Amino acid sequence: MFVSDALGLSRHAEKRLEEKNILRDAFIPHSFFSDLIEVLRFDKKFGEIEEGTVIAKTVKGVRVVRGFPKIRRALTLYPTLKQHFEKEVAVEEKMNGYNVRIARFGKNLYAMTRRGYICPYTTERCREKVGLDFFKDNPDLVLCCEAVGEESPFVPKKVYGISELEFFVFDIREMRTNAPLPIREKMSLCEEYGLKAAPILEIADVRRAHEIIVEIVKRLGKEGREGVVIKDPAMKIDPLKYTTSEANAGDLSYAFRYFNEYGKDFMFSRIIREGFQSFEFNEDEKEFRERCFRLGFSILKSLRESIKDVYEGKEVREKIRLRFRDFEVLNLFIEHLRKTGVTFEVVDVRKEGEYAILHVERIMRSTTDKIKSHLGGSPW
Amino acid sequence: MFVSDALGLSRHAEKRLEEKNILRDAFIPHSFFSDLIEVLRFDKKFGEIEEGTVIAKTVKGVRVVRGFPKIRRALTLYPTLKQHFEKEVAVEEKMNGYNVRIARFGKNLYAMTRRGYICPYTTERCREKVGLDFFKDNPDLVLCCEAVGEESPFVPKKVYGISELEFFVFDIREMRTNAPLPIREKMSLCEEYGLKAAPILEIADVRRAHEIIVEIVKRLGKEGREGVVIKDPAMKIDPLKYTTSEANAGDLSYAFRYFNEYGKDFMFSRIIREGFQSFEFNEDEKEFRERCFRLGFSILKSLRESIKDVYEGKEVREKIRLRFRDFEVLNLFIEHLRKTGVTFEVVDVRKEGEYAILHVERIMRSTTDKIKSHLGGSPW
Repeated sequence: MFVSDALGLSRHAEKRLEEKNILRDAFIPHSFFSDLIEVLRFDKKFGEIEEGTVIAKTVKGVRVVRGFPKIRRALTLYPTLKQHFEKEVAVEEKMNGYNVRIARFGKNLYAMTRRGYICPYTTERCREKVGLDFFKDNPDLVLCCEAVGEESPFVPKKVYGISELEFFVFDIREMRTNAPLPIREKMSLCEEYGLKAAPILEIADVRRAHEIIVEIVKRLGKEGREGVVIKDPAMKIDPLKYTTSEANAGDLSYAFRYFNEYGKDFMFSRIIREGFQSFEFNEDEKEFRERCFRLGFSILKSLRESIKDVYEGKEVREKIRLRFRDFEVLNLFIEHLRKTGVTFEVVDVRKEGEYAILHVERIMRSTTDKIKSHLGGSPW
Repeated sequence: MFVSDALGLSRHAEKRLEEKNILRDAFIPHSFFSDLIEVLRFDKKFGEIEEGTVIAKTVKGVRVVRGFPKIRRALTLYPTLKQHFEKEVAVEEKMNGYNVRIARFGKNLYAMTRRGYICPYTTERCREKVGLDFFKDNPDLVLCCEAVGEESPFVPKKVYGISELEFFVFDIREMRTNAPLPIREKMSLCEEYGLKAAPILEIADVRRAHEIIVEIVKRLGKEGREGVVIKDPAMKIDPLKYTTSEANAGDLSYAFRYFNEYGKDFMFSRIIREGFQSFEFNEDEKEFRERCFRLGFSILKSLRESIKDVYEGKEVREKIRLRFRDFEVLNLFIEHLRKTGVTFEVVDVRKEGEYAILHVERIMRSTTDKIKSHLGGSPW
């Protein structure tokens, strides 16, 4: 099997991999994906191999793109940073979008989502926005990007003033080993090739970093931004993330809008974070009351909105708008959505200049049904 | 086996019951429990037999006390009540304490908790507060009570102005069949024997009940009380419960104080209730903002308090004060706590008039450890 060869798996490991049914198709064959012969993704972690790892048999041979590793979260800045890092930390803005790995296979770029799907929409966007220059000189590197903007199939956000979709590089990694470049190298490569990068907000002495980050996080929160990723400048130590109260509230607002589609762990962990931040930020009575209100409001406003939708006979839906240059890619994306198990309705497709604009609504069936049942008189 | 005989189980059912390991010891043998030879409780539901059902081999023969059935919750008052009930409903106050079934075995009263344990503390209290009169005339009936007050091992509450512990009858049921008496009969028996009962606040036409209950629930909320149980006066239809926003917030406050001991479902369901109530009560902007703040505050205040406790080197603990007439019962209760898997520390025992006052603190190990780990620098 080409996967075992590519990863150097033993016979024994190969057998276990098959038994566990971890490998899944990662794309829908189509002329738009002309460089790809067969692509598999790891649907779960397997030993050292991260979930979302992609093994692509291409016209130019087999390529491995390792899954993006989970970034753990600091619940307290002090003493977590001091214990986890050495000497200095780089404080990078954490942008709020979806995680995309961009690599070159054969002649073209391909964009992989967190779970390892090759997404037609994101692929077309990155070919336009990112381009091949960087990969001509660095064929074995992967750009790990946050795809951010209002035209996002997963996390539509208005915050950044990006009406379409942009890619912000936050890591550059070696394809096969997943080894990240040091921050300095990453930033200078981004500059050299004109790539947007998640901004480095500060390089701080680890002993003072917690104080500085409290201020940064408060400021980012007021601007509606998500938070920071704290990194070892050499990228030898795993990074940690830390988010603003406003982002936690935003996540809760989203999760409770679609409360029956989301895991309770998602809500729970975000609520607990608020408790730790409130404690560590040592806030006064007024700030604390604001935080309480923000938390309650983010939850109840969304719940009320969804209940109201169903009361008015509608379904709970998420509206998504995306642009496509190639009409065939639009159709391919619709097929991709179907394949990944999303329930949706295509509401409108219209021509706008050189683009076909797709309006699709994701239907939150479980939340809708739950609300409908209680509004209809079913007890819990 | 005396259990199968008492319940009339088939050989097949008896075998399944054994295989599933559902029957557990319900008490610790002691002279205080002198009427009891062997008592078993159902640790899970088994066919028709409710969780918490107790089968007692006593000096006077075998007796069955069925488990108290789960009361489902109305998420919306309208149209739930109209659909669920017929003609009229009785609106009973739901008191906030712990569920206790009181029955006579042999010469004495015994108090069973929800899960079917014979609790030494509650048993001693009910012998003093409830007495045998009712049971002399009605040996086959069970008093289903809410045990309420500041001296509660499970739900210490100041709300009702009860500094010790009182028993409020909310159902009277037949031991073996679990059939409840109609409301009117229940209330007149309570009156006849001088038993406290959960108050009936209203008998309402089912078509108007939702409007009346909105007003009742708002009023109860302001008084810090829990809510209502809505019942068919004939008790032929299962009751439904409905709680105040303040009680939901109170539950959340309690649950987040001890957040790692509690199931996420507990928090989640209470938050969802608030969404439905907010929608149905059609509240204005000011009321809605108050509800948001109440929700956020109930959560964050508790979280902060527990984090602060651990930060100051303490454990997260719940303080409980109980009185015992008989010092041996006090010791028996401590043994009972240990047996039911509670981690606790006896902080003080002192004589106060005719009573021994026990101060015990329940130690919330899981919450304490979780907080300690994050305060110590562990990422999530």
